[in-house]
Amino acid sequence: MNSKDIVYVNGAFVPRAEARISVEDRGFVFGDGVYEVLRVINARPFAAKFHNDRLKRSLEGVRISLAGGASPESLTEIANQLLRDNGLLQGEATIYMQVTRGVATRAHNFPPPDLPPTIYISVARFTPYSEFAQTGAPAITHPDIRWGRCDLKTLNLLPNVLASQTAKERGAFEAMLIRDGVVTEGTKTNFFGVVDGSLRTHPSDTHILPGITRSVLRDLARTVNIDFDETPIRAEEIPRLSELFLTGTTTDVMPVVRLDDKPVGKGKPGELTKKLQRVLAESLASGGD
Amino acid sequence: MNSKDIVYVNGAFVPRAEARISVEDRGFVFGDGVYEVLRVINARPFAAKFHNDRLKRSLEGVRISLAGGASPESLTEIANQLLRDNGLLQGEATIYMQVTRGVATRAHNFPPPDLPPTIYISVARFTPYSEFAQTGAPAITHPDIRWGRCDLKTLNLLPNVLASQTAKERGAFEAMLIRDGVVTEGTKTNFFGVVDGSLRTHPSDTHILPGITRSVLRDLARTVNIDFDETPIRAEEIPRLSELFLTGTTTDVMPVVRLDDKPVGKGKPGELTKKLQRVLAESLASGGD
Repeated sequence: MNSKDIVYVNGAFVPRAEARISVEDRGFVFGDGVYEVLRVINARPFAAKFHNDRLKRSLEGVRISLAGGASPESLTEIANQLLRDNGLLQGEATIYMQVTRGVATRAHNFPPPDLPPTIYISVARFTPYSEFAQTGAPAITHPDIRWGRCDLKTLNLLPNVLASQTAKERGAFEAMLIRDGVVTEGTKTNFFGVVDGSLRTHPSDTHILPGITRSVLRDLARTVNIDFDETPIRAEEIPRLSELFLTGTTTDVMPVVRLDDKPVGKGKPGELTKKLQRVLAESLASGGD
Repeated sequence: MNSKDIVYVNGAFVPRAEARISVEDRGFVFGDGVYEVLRVINARPFAAKFHNDRLKRSLEGVRISLAGGASPESLTEIANQLLRDNGLLQGEATIYMQVTRGVATRAHNFPPPDLPPTIYISVARFTPYSEFAQTGAPAITHPDIRWGRCDLKTLNLLPNVLASQTAKERGAFEAMLIRDGVVTEGTKTNFFGVVDGSLRTHPSDTHILPGITRSVLRDLARTVNIDFDETPIRAEEIPRLSELFLTGTTTDVMPVVRLDDKPVGKGKPGELTKKLQRVLAESLASGGD
């Protein structure tokens, strides 16, 4: 929330409280759409190209076309306008961009291809989770019962919502999801762990979202001679984790020091985790250059 | 669509074209809600108790509470009002009822429990698919990549949307979904097949929606000495199907006579299918008594 709180819906810049869509929007009745969340530091969206590319992949994956030659880049331009209109050019903010298949009489099949999609963009002041970044956060394990295309950033988020809420009720920051005996990712983050000295995370396939921070961190990690091993962590390896952390656009690198009420490793942020926190923080501070 | 086209949103009866919800509705940003579709014949919702019970189960399953002592029955009362207001007391119609977790600043975790849910109800004229009911419909097989709680009738319908669209583009009426080597159900229907003389369908577990027509048909089938065997049809049994049909609130018992461009059995509606079509049609005509 901010003092002006203007959002964008289908061509109009309107106060958030007045921003409305039709009850027949396919986002509302089918979750038929995709979205992105970007981090903004001093008016500069971080890793914007990664987010734009992923939005393109998500749109293609669910077969939604932006109307009239619009592009993810043009949505970022609108977001920049919102940052200006809402007085968020200084400090930290987030951009939320959502595209649905548009408004049509309810039927599962696609509406005619010339139907314009619904575009909703909003911005908000953002405050990093600095306490957990220092001390480390608690997490729980939770079954991963999501669908088979978790690589697409869609609005079908009910399993994420339910697992996230379960985590909260158990005093945890995030749920670490487990499918077929391996750690996939969190409800809104990617997970990394250190087993026998090597940094492991789930490979980028249809069972996880290709996290932007995950991608950025891979490049940064190489500069400090750390590599990811994309062999997923097996459930039975969890007791042997010496370090655990999660990554995300709004979480950065966040140490996880308790899992299911038991300490991870020594119960405090590990050396490798802290090193990666540092390189990511430096990259954020420099605007990703 | 009908001449007046009044719908209900959160206490108001408004023209469909003016019915709006907030962009921050959790139905719009998370698909965080559930729904029901009822069949109405001459102002009488068919199998209303089954639908109300299922709506209760769906709401409990996703942990949404109706506000202020409202019940599924009270939603049906609103729907009856809509049928009157829209001049749909005669002939066939459908009721669509949707409940979401309400409007809140976007965050995966649940909003405060006293937040009122969003309730959207609409009605429409309905014309049965009488041609396919006579001649039988074409279907395709399709991988079932949905989540692990398909027993809840939620708004997370993107996999259903995509598979349904694929079916349409291949000239088919429905996609028959296959998970782990067995037929589960359709994108909006349940599937039944006859293998070696016995009628088989997937058991009612977390991988299928407990269809109302499926339940109604079970009771009706007993009256004509037909039982379901809830042993799911294995993919390798598909070539041996002598009959195949789908069921649903708006599809009744619909024969499936072609599957993946090959005839099912003799390529025309089978005897057992036709018998079940008859008993269901009689029940619908009598209002379910």
